[in-house]
Amino acid sequence: MTEFTQIKLDTANGIATLTLSRPEKMNAFTGIMMQEMIDAIDITDADDSVRAVIVTGEGERAFCAGADLTPDEGAGNVFARHDPVDDLSDTRVRDGGGRLVLRLFNSQKPLIGACNGVAVGVGATMQLPFDMRLCSDNARFGFVFARRGITPEACSSWFLPRLVGMQTALEWCMTGRIFDAGEARERGLVRSVHPQGELMDAAVSLAREIADNTSAVSVAMTRAMLWRLSATDHPMMAHRIDSRSIYRLGKSEDSKEGVRSFLEKRAPAYPDTVSADMPDFYPWWDEPGYE
Amino acid sequence: MTEFTQIKLDTANGIATLTLSRPEKMNAFTGIMMQEMIDAIDITDADDSVRAVIVTGEGERAFCAGADLTPDEGAGNVFARHDPVDDLSDTRVRDGGGRLVLRLFNSQKPLIGACNGVAVGVGATMQLPFDMRLCSDNARFGFVFARRGITPEACSSWFLPRLVGMQTALEWCMTGRIFDAGEARERGLVRSVHPQGELMDAAVSLAREIADNTSAVSVAMTRAMLWRLSATDHPMMAHRIDSRSIYRLGKSEDSKEGVRSFLEKRAPAYPDTVSADMPDFYPWWDEPGYE
Amino acid sequence: MTEFTQIKLDTANGIATLTLSRPEKMNAFTGIMMQEMIDAIDITDADDSVRAVIVTGEGERAFCAGADLTPDEGAGNVFARHDPVDDLSDTRVRDGGGRLVLRLFNSQKPLIGACNGVAVGVGATMQLPFDMRLCSDNARFGFVFARRGITPEACSSWFLPRLVGMQTALEWCMTGRIFDAGEARERGLVRSVHPQGELMDAAVSLAREIADNTSAVSVAMTRAMLWRLSATDHPMMAHRIDSRSIYRLGKSEDSKEGVRSFLEKRAPAYPDTVSADMPDFYPWWDEPGYE
Repeated sequence: MTEFTQIKLDTANGIATLTLSRPEKMNAFTGIMMQEMIDAIDITDADDSVRAVIVTGEGERAFCAGADLTPDEGAGNVFARHDPVDDLSDTRVRDGGGRLVLRLFNSQKPLIGACNGVAVGVGATMQLPFDMRLCSDNARFGFVFARRGITPEACSSWFLPRLVGMQTALEWCMTGRIFDAGEARERGLVRSVHPQGELMDAAVSLAREIADNTSAVSVAMTRAMLWRLSATDHPMMAHRIDSRSIYRLGKSEDSKEGVRSFLEKRAPAYPDTVSADMPDFYPWWDEPGYE
Repeated sequence: MTEFTQIKLDTANGIATLTLSRPEKMNAFTGIMMQEMIDAIDITDADDSVRAVIVTGEGERAFCAGADLTPDEGAGNVFARHDPVDDLSDTRVRDGGGRLVLRLFNSQKPLIGACNGVAVGVGATMQLPFDMRLCSDNARFGFVFARRGITPEACSSWFLPRLVGMQTALEWCMTGRIFDAGEARERGLVRSVHPQGELMDAAVSLAREIADNTSAVSVAMTRAMLWRLSATDHPMMAHRIDSRSIYRLGKSEDSKEGVRSFLEKRAPAYPDTVSADMPDFYPWWDEPGYE
Repeated sequence: MTEFTQIKLDTANGIATLTLSRPEKMNAFTGIMMQEMIDAIDITDADDSVRAVIVTGEGERAFCAGADLTPDEGAGNVFARHDPVDDLSDTRVRDGGGRLVLRLFNSQKPLIGACNGVAVGVGATMQLPFDMRLCSDNARFGFVFARRGITPEACSSWFLPRLVGMQTALEWCMTGRIFDAGEARERGLVRSVHPQGELMDAAVSLAREIADNTSAVSVAMTRAMLWRLSATDHPMMAHRIDSRSIYRLGKSEDSKEGVRSFLEKRAPAYPDTVSADMPDFYPWWDEPGYE
């Protein structure tokens, strides 16, 4: 088992729980935490038993209070900190929150956020590539960058307008103000708000709905298709991919079991796995590099 | 008059009604229905008397229960079903729902959905390129693909996030669960919910508002501009087209009648037609092909 | 001081107020007003003391009743009106509303709309590139183009779906109907509705929240990042820019003051200015030209 120092990763009954675990520091983000989270997603992707990943923070106070500002703990531009570079295309300039978020973007398993308290700065932006976000009623959010003399990071200028529309995204990022769970729900950042003591049950329940009813291959494909194809400029881009997908998966064991279990009115038992049975044209894209 | 077997097409007072008509099969989608719907849109586009198209299902139970799973009726990859191909760029692999949706995308007349009951699978995704969606209070929707071992089709990964945002689109497609009219309204999939007996009146009323007050050329242009230009990466792309449009249409007979009827506080009588009077730069795009 | 004839520009305590000022004409838009608004934004961009711009209309009746239809006052295709051209790529064909909106799109200062009454046609579309929109309870909006025989302009086919989603954008533009402040709020066009007498106080309060708490450089960067990067097709496009931004601004005087004032729990006093201290890679884009 991988040894982590700033996160915990537990898997039970098909659901992995990734917990940010520096409660004495309000789970503040560091370069170490970034790398451990990336490693954890590598693990959940490779483990066919994992059908969904819940991401939460330890304690009842904070999900993640942002980047740790203590020297040697900083998460943004981690490596460049000690090795100043002037060439902005140098990969050492890369933002740490963005490196994490790009790995989350490519997760093959559904990501469900269970935001259990304060989430500011990278603690808020790292949640944007999650597929679904729940929060506790004491949660507070802040895209506070303009109040610190910096700017939104972790690709949040790409993600946030997709979730809450341009007007809300601009207001939150231009004022940098802290807002509560109710506003997060009303504007569409989170799908639901729960009493602190019921948050994890709600997240597990949503994860179970996916794990108990759907094909893992279907969900991995769905995740890539929605995030990627919605960002293209014509529905034909989706037609090219979903035609191939329906054709290939229409012959799969999972699709046979899907129809069979539906007609027999019983729970499905899908045989296909993400490690072995993704369709032959997947991945269909060329992932852009940093430059 | 075109003879249809699985749909009905009626036109009265400027409004065409396209009815999915296999009530004994809950209007399940087939390759025949796909082709008849495409043919119907060719007809409504070519008929200058048609100012709006309402799409609904026969009966009070279902709009469309998805693809007919009976052998020889399947709607997805219709042709490839009997003629397996291995080259995924082969056009025989094309998804039937997508072929329909791409034709709807190019409709020159406004499409108004009147969803009168159950709408699952392609019964839900075929509604996404409609311009406006109303539903009855007994309507239920389901993007159930992951529960059948397949994936979203009919270009829905492109359309759905544009209508309801990424978070809702992902939740609906990853859980595959059925949801009711109230949730469809709350999340923005439908604009309004009506008692079953009042649904068609509400759809006709909305169609009348367009037919009685607007220029057909203006509406055909508006439809293409909003769907296409909103998907580009810079407002200059819109400026290039709307500059040309305002310049050309600003000299049209419809624009003279538009101003005149407004100043005279009377109903307009627009002389221009879609068949004869679209501006000379229309269409301004190169439609991408399947490959 | 610049002499304006159809607008007013006042600056006080870091907030500029741009007032459309033809109250006897319901502040109808003209070619002169277009140029004066563009000039005003050049002024607010160049003036480091300006931290936010409020745009409103004079009087309690109208924000802007659309393009002035009087001969010689028309705002669309201003120059081409008297000098007909047949080459639609000729820059004289350019839509006046679009020329204004593209300048607003490139504003370095936050734009806050205080819509004080009727806003139809270009009076509605010119508000779309504002970052935040407030309105009075007597405000009414209309994307009335299809009722005048023309089409949406001022790049609104690009902006409107980003603010209110495709379904609402299509309905408003296809029916061309007038709607009230409540509907504008419910669908997300405006963020809040206020009694007429309290509108400007609310707008100033929002502007103050930005002016008193944030870095001007951060806000100018945030504005460009959100509008531009959200329209790209992959989060890596954002990562390339926000990595550079965090790296450069992380060494800035503003970021030091941001952290210092936060730790000292006092109001910040940011030293950096938009005129002198934007990061060296800004602007990072090639602005597309009209063609």
